[in-house]
Amino acid sequence: MIRRAVRVAARLSQRRALAGAPCILPRLNPTSAFGSSTDSLVSRFCPEKTDLKDYALPNASWCPDMLSLYQEFLEKTKADGWIKLPSFKSNRDHIQGLKLPSGLAVTSDKSEWRIFTRCIQVDGQGYEYVIFFHPSKKKSVCLFQPGPYLEGAPGFAHGGSLAAMMDETFSKTAYLAGEGLFTLNLSIRFKNLIPVGSLAVLNVDVEKIEDQKLYMSCVAQSKDQQTVYAKSSGIFLQLQLEEESSQ
Amino acid sequence: MIRRAVRVAARLSQRRALAGAPCILPRLNPTSAFGSSTDSLVSRFCPEKTDLKDYALPNASWCPDMLSLYQEFLEKTKADGWIKLPSFKSNRDHIQGLKLPSGLAVTSDKSEWRIFTRCIQVDGQGYEYVIFFHPSKKKSVCLFQPGPYLEGAPGFAHGGSLAAMMDETFSKTAYLAGEGLFTLNLSIRFKNLIPVGSLAVLNVDVEKIEDQKLYMSCVAQSKDQQTVYAKSSGIFLQLQLEEESSQ
Repeated sequence: MIRRAVRVAARLSQRRALAGAPCILPRLNPTSAFGSSTDSLVSRFCPEKTDLKDYALPNASWCPDMLSLYQEFLEKTKADGWIKLPSFKSNRDHIQGLKLPSGLAVTSDKSEWRIFTRCIQVDGQGYEYVIFFHPSKKKSVCLFQPGPYLEGAPGFAHGGSLAAMMDETFSKTAYLAGEGLFTLNLSIRFKNLIPVGSLAVLNVDVEKIEDQKLYMSCVAQSKDQQTVYAKSSGIFLQLQLEEESSQ
Repeated sequence: MIRRAVRVAARLSQRRALAGAPCILPRLNPTSAFGSSTDSLVSRFCPEKTDLKDYALPNASWCPDMLSLYQEFLEKTKADGWIKLPSFKSNRDHIQGLKLPSGLAVTSDKSEWRIFTRCIQVDGQGYEYVIFFHPSKKKSVCLFQPGPYLEGAPGFAHGGSLAAMMDETFSKTAYLAGEGLFTLNLSIRFKNLIPVGSLAVLNVDVEKIEDQKLYMSCVAQSKDQQTVYAKSSGIFLQLQLEEESSQ
């Protein structure tokens, strides 16, 4: 069961010398503790051909700041090694063809599952976001525009909506940078509220990978970097995924 | 501007002796640093008559564990001092008649605003939750059942959805226990994943109120207390609200 898998995580978090020597970034051509290169993880995660809808594409609700920074990063995907991550309706679409750890097997049923950060599908009302990832730098940038269904204080995004956006950006970064699968710790210091409809830029860095854990940091700020919305740290546990024999 | 208000928060978090002697719980008939009693905050927050829809009521999607614990706490509201908090579509409905701190004035517009934790209005698909609060003990219990739109790992609630539920429960507790308004810190240790459709019970305690800040803790676990899902701490900043002269 997953509980057992995550109990392993909890136990691991109390042990310091499981996976051999620590791997401190930066390094070239990185390989996770389990042998998958970042390149192979990224190519599996970003299929060139798919019928799945990508929700991380511009729509009429995007504010000018979000659109212009999106275009800027899209240019960087052509030369600077950045990759735009697709965003499907469910994590299930990202992990097709993988054997999951014990207890995490995906049963096929008829429920409509959605990844939390795509729970609202009306353009501009909920989460608008796109994540760019840089494999060799092990960095991510998430452009996040909260809509009016994400409100906390009147006119501003709920702290929990930013917490979830940070957790999701950490999650994708941890997976692609080193097969990190489960959040062990998430710690956030809030500084300023994000106005609904405006852009917050989340800059995520993998600080180190050690003892089967990825340590990450995040700063969320305005596009002009004059307003810091929040700073956070996240620790994710690596767990090995196995490819299906048919893959 | 709200930014200024929250910059005050950030500054406050670095200062230790603003509001006089610390107030360590428990105490009877508590009064916040700004003079509002918990009783008056609660009675304003829980109007006896309102046309607003209360989303914290049972529906057909609630699992048996959630229903039975809801009934148990409802009994406790009759004799043991617990209060069931109503949950409206927007925080704006809770703060009618209050002057907000500078920059937080509620403008009237035609957008449909929703509090993040009520962003999905189809029964059982998103957040199902109800919060009970005990004024003199300064405790809260939140019964939380995540639906399939809150998914992270297949079949389990996204860590961010639990983070947001914790932040929201902290938020309501902080406001009613001591006019706490803004999250300064939120720190979560995840232990086990919550299966979609099952009940997580969040137990929140106000540990102390000191230097205009409320320090709270939360344990989220299964109904039988055999599985701890996560533990967290939250720090909220008190900011004075003023009643409208017409109230």
